[in-house]
Amino acid sequence: MSEIKRIEIIGRGNVATHLRNALENYSVNLINPHTLENLDRDSDLILIAVTDDAIKEVSNKIGNTNAIVAHTSGTTPIDILERVGSPYGVFYPLQTFSKDIKLNYRKIPFFIEGADNDTEVALKSLAAHISDSVYAVDSNKRKVLHVASVFACNFVNHLWGAANKILADNHIPFTALTPLIEETIRKATASGEPYSVQTGPAVRGDKATMSQHLDMLRNYPELRELYSILSESIQITSKNIRNVRN
Amino acid sequence: MSEIKRIEIIGRGNVATHLRNALENYSVNLINPHTLENLDRDSDLILIAVTDDAIKEVSNKIGNTNAIVAHTSGTTPIDILERVGSPYGVFYPLQTFSKDIKLNYRKIPFFIEGADNDTEVALKSLAAHISDSVYAVDSNKRKVLHVASVFACNFVNHLWGAANKILADNHIPFTALTPLIEETIRKATASGEPYSVQTGPAVRGDKATMSQHLDMLRNYPELRELYSILSESIQITSKNIRNVRN
Repeated sequence: MSEIKRIEIIGRGNVATHLRNALENYSVNLINPHTLENLDRDSDLILIAVTDDAIKEVSNKIGNTNAIVAHTSGTTPIDILERVGSPYGVFYPLQTFSKDIKLNYRKIPFFIEGADNDTEVALKSLAAHISDSVYAVDSNKRKVLHVASVFACNFVNHLWGAANKILADNHIPFTALTPLIEETIRKATASGEPYSVQTGPAVRGDKATMSQHLDMLRNYPELRELYSILSESIQITSKNIRNVRN
Repeated sequence: MSEIKRIEIIGRGNVATHLRNALENYSVNLINPHTLENLDRDSDLILIAVTDDAIKEVSNKIGNTNAIVAHTSGTTPIDILERVGSPYGVFYPLQTFSKDIKLNYRKIPFFIEGADNDTEVALKSLAAHISDSVYAVDSNKRKVLHVASVFACNFVNHLWGAANKILADNHIPFTALTPLIEETIRKATASGEPYSVQTGPAVRGDKATMSQHLDMLRNYPELRELYSILSESIQITSKNIRNVRN
């Protein structure tokens, strides 16, 4: 398989435009997914960077090509492309892209899958031109990664929202917590095992503080319930870890 | 009230040593809390940087002084020092301090309380020499802040542990999530309201993905329950926010 040089990116959302920027050393065309007008079917790679539920339809419209066809979705199995008739794969950057926000692409992890070995090698090699973190994972592992990112980002953001709600009612800006949050992520990452650097009243078994906190949250029933459940979960986890170690 | 120049820090933990480093432009003595040997009672400020449950005992041993006496605890009310007989207050840096980890002290928020106005002004002025973020808050607000930091850091770290558990079982390092986590905190902070930048299947009401995720978590009953509860909480919150806006 020859090296990828000419790339068509179908899409006009944030993923498509950021991938075009990340691939600035290549010959790249950005293609409107609604018409596929000007799609160069003689290119080396056609990237489908559209919403999950549009991937199938777009792939059906590509028509006759020898290019590798790859989608950029974290949650969609590779098989959705099995009828394109040319080599196919997945080219998934694990990041949340915003318009006008510049990112350091070398730090973004790319998760690659190829329907055959040559395709996987070609896509990995392309990803390595963009990023220092390239992993080959099958569709099942990519799903695992997606669940993990729901815990690590979506749920985490919800808890930051909860913290902000309490702070805002007391006229303290959320940014007052930023240094503490940043140090918490530094410690979690440096340890390689966040459970091992858990701090706070729950893991200490500090019942007096926890009951004081629950009392303070009496006007926030929703947050009060989260506090109880998460504190209990921390205590169960810490007990399980101690049992494994003993 | 004259400016604070000579400072005694009682304590030998991470808070005490980091505060000494942060106050390098001052005349600072680090004092052993068990003996209070060499404590200079003619200094301008005596900082009690010991564990919460030792503050009372240490403050009782200080004896006759005109110095401001302040503790550094987030959870202990100012009143615990009311019997020291000299001006008293709270000098609380909101950060988790580790041994041998250098921090940018200018970014650490300090929360200050003085039993009288002069003391509060003096402590705020000292904090402003260390940090760009200095807030005057009473003991009640400081408790609010502590609850918020439990949500924003302790609970968040627990969710990172959950993510890592799923990843580790699939041989994916936790660091693969770091860029996504960092971008999530950047967006939450930039928005000033994390709820407003919430993403993921729960806030989208994407039932198919949520039920797929729950199915994938069938071997992790503890995480499965957290997934359900947090997804539900996100949906309730998003519904409430929409209702407020309408």
